[in-house]
Amino acid sequence: MDNPPYFAPHLDPTSVGIVTPQTLHFDEPLTLECERVLPSFDLVIETYGELNADKTNAILICHALSGSHHAAGYHSEGDTKAGWWDNLIGNGKAIDTSRFFVVCLNNIGSCHGSTGPTTINPATGEIWGADFPLITIKDWVKTQVMLSDRLGIAKWHAIVGGSMGGMQALQWSVDYPDRLERAVIIASTPKLSAQNIAFNEVARQSILSDPDFHDGWYLKHGTYPRRGLILARMVGHITYITEEAMKAKFGRDLKSGKFMYGYDVEFQVESYLRYQGERFSKNFDANTYLLMTKALDYFDPTRDYTKDELGEKEALKQTLARTKCQFLIVSFTTDWRFTPERSVEIVDALMANDKRVSFVNVGAPHGHDSFLFDIPRYTTAVRGFLNAPVIKRQTGDITPQEISQLARQ
Amino acid sequence: MDNPPYFAPHLDPTSVGIVTPQTLHFDEPLTLECERVLPSFDLVIETYGELNADKTNAILICHALSGSHHAAGYHSEGDTKAGWWDNLIGNGKAIDTSRFFVVCLNNIGSCHGSTGPTTINPATGEIWGADFPLITIKDWVKTQVMLSDRLGIAKWHAIVGGSMGGMQALQWSVDYPDRLERAVIIASTPKLSAQNIAFNEVARQSILSDPDFHDGWYLKHGTYPRRGLILARMVGHITYITEEAMKAKFGRDLKSGKFMYGYDVEFQVESYLRYQGERFSKNFDANTYLLMTKALDYFDPTRDYTKDELGEKEALKQTLARTKCQFLIVSFTTDWRFTPERSVEIVDALMANDKRVSFVNVGAPHGHDSFLFDIPRYTTAVRGFLNAPVIKRQTGDITPQEISQLARQ
Repeated sequence: MDNPPYFAPHLDPTSVGIVTPQTLHFDEPLTLECERVLPSFDLVIETYGELNADKTNAILICHALSGSHHAAGYHSEGDTKAGWWDNLIGNGKAIDTSRFFVVCLNNIGSCHGSTGPTTINPATGEIWGADFPLITIKDWVKTQVMLSDRLGIAKWHAIVGGSMGGMQALQWSVDYPDRLERAVIIASTPKLSAQNIAFNEVARQSILSDPDFHDGWYLKHGTYPRRGLILARMVGHITYITEEAMKAKFGRDLKSGKFMYGYDVEFQVESYLRYQGERFSKNFDANTYLLMTKALDYFDPTRDYTKDELGEKEALKQTLARTKCQFLIVSFTTDWRFTPERSVEIVDALMANDKRVSFVNVGAPHGHDSFLFDIPRYTTAVRGFLNAPVIKRQTGDITPQEISQLARQ
Repeated sequence: MDNPPYFAPHLDPTSVGIVTPQTLHFDEPLTLECERVLPSFDLVIETYGELNADKTNAILICHALSGSHHAAGYHSEGDTKAGWWDNLIGNGKAIDTSRFFVVCLNNIGSCHGSTGPTTINPATGEIWGADFPLITIKDWVKTQVMLSDRLGIAKWHAIVGGSMGGMQALQWSVDYPDRLERAVIIASTPKLSAQNIAFNEVARQSILSDPDFHDGWYLKHGTYPRRGLILARMVGHITYITEEAMKAKFGRDLKSGKFMYGYDVEFQVESYLRYQGERFSKNFDANTYLLMTKALDYFDPTRDYTKDELGEKEALKQTLARTKCQFLIVSFTTDWRFTPERSVEIVDALMANDKRVSFVNVGAPHGHDSFLFDIPRYTTAVRGFLNAPVIKRQTGDITPQEISQLARQ
C-alpha cells in the first residue's frame, strides 16, 4: 500500500518549489535622502527561474508595506504557506519563471532580514532600533540599483510592484530611465492623498503612544508595543478591503448569536479584525511600521525634477517626460485606498508626454488587496505585457499627441 | 464716543440668545433593553421658543455621538461658542423658534450632565464609571417618551436628528407611531454596516487597550485614557469628513515647509488630526464613548418586530409598516460614513408601505459632517417640511403603489 497522501504544495508543477533566501552584503557607504549614511548594509533576496546568457530576462519585484523577499514558493517541504505573490509568480504563471529570472528583495528598513531597525548597527554593536534612519522610496531604488550591479543586470526586462511596490517601479522609471524596459505599476498612486496620510498618522500614533514603545527601544526593554501594532493593523486593514467584501464576509452577524451587552467580541467583523491585528503584532516590527508609513507619506517622484510652484498635474507630467520604458498601469474598481483615479493620473501624465502606456482597470471585489489575488483579467494583462516585445516607435510614426491635434482641426 | 464694539453673538436677532439648561429628575425605575434597571435618572434639557396653548408646536431634537442638550444659543454674554445646531435652530431659521417650541436633551449614558458614567450611582454613592449599563437607541427613545409626558406633549410636531440622532427619530416612528406627526432623519442609516462597526471597534480598542483606562475606573485612579481617546477621535474624524475636503483644506502641505524626517508633525493634516484628538480627549468621557459606539452598532429597529430569517430589506419594510408620521429623509452626496444609499433604503422601505416620505440628497462637500452646516438646499428642505401642514391622505386617494401597478398594466 502506498504511503498516505500528504500536503506537498511545493510539488505543484506551476510552483517555483522550495527556495532559499540569500543575503548579499554591501560594504560601501550609502548616503540616504535624509543625509544620514549607512556604512554598510545587507539585502536578503530570493530568485526564481534562470538568468539568460545576455542577462536580458530579469524581472525585479518590489514589495509593499508588510512584504518581504519571499514572493513565491516555499521554504521547506513541510511549509504550507507560499510566498506573498505566489498567485502571480511561477512556471507558466503571469510572471513566468520558465521565461524570466525573477528577483525579489527585502528592502532596507524592513524587518525580514535586510538591514533595518531589528538588525545590528555595526557602529555600536547593538540593535539599530529607533536610531535607524528614515528611508524613502528613492533610497530603496538606489539600493536596488546597487543590487542590479551586483547581479550584473544592466537593464531589467521589467520592474513590477503593487501598492508601495508600484511606487518603487515608478521612481525607477524616473531616476534610472535607461535601466528598465518595462514598469508594471499596480494598485498604486503618484502621491498619497491627505486621507491616506491621515490613516497612516492614526496607525503611527497608535504605536508611538503605546507605553511599551519606549521611544522605539522596546527590544532593549524586553517588550514590544503589541497594543499599538494591533490598532495600527486594524485601521490599516479596514482600508485594504471594501465595505462590500466585509458585508459579504460578515454582514452584521453576531459571533455568539445573541447580544451580550459588553465589550467582548460580539460581531464577526470585530473578531476578524482583532485576529488580524494580533497576528500582525507578533510578526512585524513597530519601528519598521513607522518607517514604512513615513516612506509612503513622503513619496513624491516630482520632488527632484520640478519646482514647487507647479500644480501636481503639471509637475507629474514634467517629471514623467524623463521616462523611457513602456508602462502597464493596473487599478482595481473597488480599491478605495489608491483609487483607479489615482492610476489614471499616472496614465494621463504619461500620455501627455507621448509615452507608451497600457492601462487596465480590473473589476474585482477585494479592494486594495486585489493585487494579491489571482484575477484572470489582471493576470492576463500582466502576462501579455511582460511576454510581448517592447513596441519601439519608428521614426516618422505619428504620435498620439499629433493624432489628437489632427482630431481637433 | 461709543464703547468699542465687542463680540456679542447672542445679540444676533436670529439667535435664540442666552439659554439656561434645566435638569429634570425622574424618580421612577427605568428597565433597559439589557435588562438592568436604573432606579432613577436625570435628563438635562434646553428649550427654545414658546410652547403653544394646545401643545402642538413642539419639536424634539435628538443629538449624535458627541452631542449634548446645548443645540442652540449661548450660555452667557461672553460665550463665543454657539450650540451645536445653531446653524439650523433660531428665529427664522430652518427650525424656526418663532413658530416652534424646540426641546433638546442630553441622553442618558452621555457625559454632559444627564445620568451617565460620570454621575453618581445612588446605590453606591460613587461614580457609575464602568458599572453604567449599556444603553440602546430604544432606551433613549423610552426616556424621551418619559420626557414628553413630563412636558405634557402628547404628540410632537416633529422629531429631528442627524446621524445617531436620526436613528432615534426612526426608532420613535416605529415604537411610538402615534406620538409624532413628522420625523426628520438626516445623514443616517437603518443599521450600521460591517465597515461602520469595524471603525467603531478600532476606536473602542484604542480606549480599552490604553493602560490609563483601568477597566473603566480611570476616574478612581485620578487619570483618564487620554491616548485612547485621541486615537478614537482621530479615526472617527477621518470618517466624518471627505477625502476631497481634506485635500482642499490641507493638500499635502508640510507644516514646516520642509521634510524633517522624524515623527513630529510634518503634514498639515497630521497636525489637524492631533489637535482634534487632543481637544476631544479633554472634553469627553471614555466610558461614554464606548457606550455610544455600542449603541450605534446595536441599532436595529427591526429587531423587535420581525423574525431573524427575513432579509434586511424585507425586515425593514415590515417594520416600517407600523409608522404613521410623515418623513423627511436627507442625505449628503459626499457622506461616506452613512452614504445616500443607506438613506434610500429607508425611503424605499417607506414607499413600499405607501408611507408619506420626502427625500433629498443634498450636494455638499463636507461628508458626514454636512448635517451640521448651513447648506441652503438642506435647510430649505427642513424648513419647508416643518412649516407645511401634514398631508393627510383622503379616503379614496390613489396610492403610489396603485399608480405603479397601473403603470405596469
